[in-house]
Amino acid sequence: MSFHSMWAELLPIGRSSASGGYRRFAWTGADTDCRAWFRAQAESRGLRYETDRNGNQWAWLGDPAEGDAVVTGSHLDSVPDGGAFDGPLGVVSAFAALDELRTRGTRFTRPLGIVNFGDEEGARFGLACVGSRLTAGQLTREQAHRLTDGDGITLPQAMEAAGQDPDSLGPDPERLARIGAFVELHVEQGRALDLSGDRVGVASAIWPHGRWRFDFRGEANHAGTTRLADRRDPMLSYAETVLAARREAERAGAVATFGKIAVEPNGVNAIPSLVRGWLDSRAPEQDTLDAVVAGIEKAARAYAESHGVDLEVVRESFTPVVEFDHALRDELARILGQERGHPGLRVPVLGTGAGHDAGILSGSVPTAMLFVRNPTGVSHSPAEFAAEDDCVAGVLALADVLEGLACR
Amino acid sequence: MSFHSMWAELLPIGRSSASGGYRRFAWTGADTDCRAWFRAQAESRGLRYETDRNGNQWAWLGDPAEGDAVVTGSHLDSVPDGGAFDGPLGVVSAFAALDELRTRGTRFTRPLGIVNFGDEEGARFGLACVGSRLTAGQLTREQAHRLTDGDGITLPQAMEAAGQDPDSLGPDPERLARIGAFVELHVEQGRALDLSGDRVGVASAIWPHGRWRFDFRGEANHAGTTRLADRRDPMLSYAETVLAARREAERAGAVATFGKIAVEPNGVNAIPSLVRGWLDSRAPEQDTLDAVVAGIEKAARAYAESHGVDLEVVRESFTPVVEFDHALRDELARILGQERGHPGLRVPVLGTGAGHDAGILSGSVPTAMLFVRNPTGVSHSPAEFAAEDDCVAGVLALADVLEGLACR
Repeated sequence: MSFHSMWAELLPIGRSSASGGYRRFAWTGADTDCRAWFRAQAESRGLRYETDRNGNQWAWLGDPAEGDAVVTGSHLDSVPDGGAFDGPLGVVSAFAALDELRTRGTRFTRPLGIVNFGDEEGARFGLACVGSRLTAGQLTREQAHRLTDGDGITLPQAMEAAGQDPDSLGPDPERLARIGAFVELHVEQGRALDLSGDRVGVASAIWPHGRWRFDFRGEANHAGTTRLADRRDPMLSYAETVLAARREAERAGAVATFGKIAVEPNGVNAIPSLVRGWLDSRAPEQDTLDAVVAGIEKAARAYAESHGVDLEVVRESFTPVVEFDHALRDELARILGQERGHPGLRVPVLGTGAGHDAGILSGSVPTAMLFVRNPTGVSHSPAEFAAEDDCVAGVLALADVLEGLACR
Repeated sequence: MSFHSMWAELLPIGRSSASGGYRRFAWTGADTDCRAWFRAQAESRGLRYETDRNGNQWAWLGDPAEGDAVVTGSHLDSVPDGGAFDGPLGVVSAFAALDELRTRGTRFTRPLGIVNFGDEEGARFGLACVGSRLTAGQLTREQAHRLTDGDGITLPQAMEAAGQDPDSLGPDPERLARIGAFVELHVEQGRALDLSGDRVGVASAIWPHGRWRFDFRGEANHAGTTRLADRRDPMLSYAETVLAARREAERAGAVATFGKIAVEPNGVNAIPSLVRGWLDSRAPEQDTLDAVVAGIEKAARAYAESHGVDLEVVRESFTPVVEFDHALRDELARILGQERGHPGLRVPVLGTGAGHDAGILSGSVPTAMLFVRNPTGVSHSPAEFAAEDDCVAGVLALADVLEGLACR
């Protein structure tokens, strides 16, 4: 089955006719349909299919018990109203790259695995990369069992409803020990390749990033009758902080975003008692990120004080910088740029602000990433897009990498 | 039953133990309990009790069919987590003023009515003053039947569940024609009386006010990977507009508030596609209000354009200035300030930014308002407060007014 046909099969699954975006949330019907598609692809190629203890799906060519396996893949779930490419491009490209290598008549000297990690986006239970985190021992079964979705359904309940045993969750070091290299192909979520004019790039690192909750507490009051001078309006401090975040990030070459807000009582004629805003910030270096967040918090405290508003800042999550394995990265660049290089194909090495299963696995396994050009840079949106030519270039690059790694 | 005892009976009804505020929403259990309290107060005083076609409650001393009745009262429902005084103070004071006049041995020459208007705050169905608007013909039955609460329950369904016939809704001109004067006592929702050092004031006018919805539409994108320069982030334009609203209002001596917001997709790691903010603005004069809102909208359009964001502004509601009946207002000032004036009691005349049933009725009936001092100015909040001494001064002032109007 061609890249094009596989892509066409996946396209309708979990697509909202209202937004045109995807709602493939972990352990829902749309996710189950995606997982059935993965299994069918594996079996139609004669690969050995299995689901691991954490609900991640694997398709094997050769016996992974022999060790030193080369694994590629990504995820099939989505953010709310996400695009078609974030995740699925890496899974579809994995199967397509295997097809390409079979066409080439390649003989594998190492086991080859294709993986679909469960619940990468964390759209339903609020934590990203649940499948890979559990496998890598970065999330315990107890922590996972406490995850709850917006309707009060726990992760174990959701897994059971989808036919997966939640009692088996836990670290899987034997599995990871058998993997010699993991390569994740992903659509780029920025415009670096578009700006450099390249179809495919290799990841250098995932930026350190974190989430901070800013609670601005003022005093609820009547919006029609309270004199401006008597107000303790937390919306004003929040607004000033949103603008300060942009300024601090701009100055430092970082990114900072207030994209989520909760207001109480959230009434048209009520000055809010509470404005809760979430800051997402990321930077190439830890020091830069620390300085940006410290600058935003300092500004926010001054604004809050000037309005008689109380401010509490809570760091809700933090992920340090992930440097991908230098030897593997250099080997990818060598394979793509020189040994088998397509004429004129430069392969730039670039950092990224997005988290990935590859970032989680990189603590346990030599890991690398390939990025495919995104002409608008738009991601986590129905408008996310990559040209089919660029996707095919990604498949060929992934095939070259797998051939270079698994057929020595 | 004393003012103090009546107040103590009402205090526990619909009070949230979490916030300490009130959740007495129209046609809920808490509202039903308040209405039962009203009926019991009426019957214990030998007043003739009735519910009108729009669910407003009335208690009569004398026969209103004789016409030229003097009516006082307010409402018993609340905003979400509102205070104890906004509404109930006017109803409790009405019964207490009648008790005071009976103690004085006053003989009434005109019928006296006490009223509890239904659904004044609009907390459940989104429209304020539903009971008085229907009665005054400012809201049709068809419009009222389309009102729906946050759970999808329509106003007719809610009324039926509370034992009220929704088919009877409609204008009630005969009832209004029999009323010669309506006086509503209300806790002040600002600090004018506190600043002037007075216990009680008379209303001059209700400021013109309105609500405008600002829809800032940008582009959803990944908060970690989208370069600042590539963003169309509507949260930035919203934040700038919040600050512009404060500046414009300050300059003009008006008020302007962004207290309600809705964000899509409202994810921590997503640049929003839509930030919808509601502006509430009020000013002493129509021209001032027009200038303030025009200034805010102009600034918002410039901000939106600079961020590549689309802006739509929709006026959702507007109420022109309400000038209370000058003759009745002057009579109240005369009664309170001279004829029966308590020594040293000045009665200032003040405007207000809040809407009231009295504002609705003023189009049909000579209407006046009395305000009782609010030492903090806080309202629409669990912290709303008025001192008992001031409340008692309000009762005596209302008794003087009723005596002056109904015992000539």
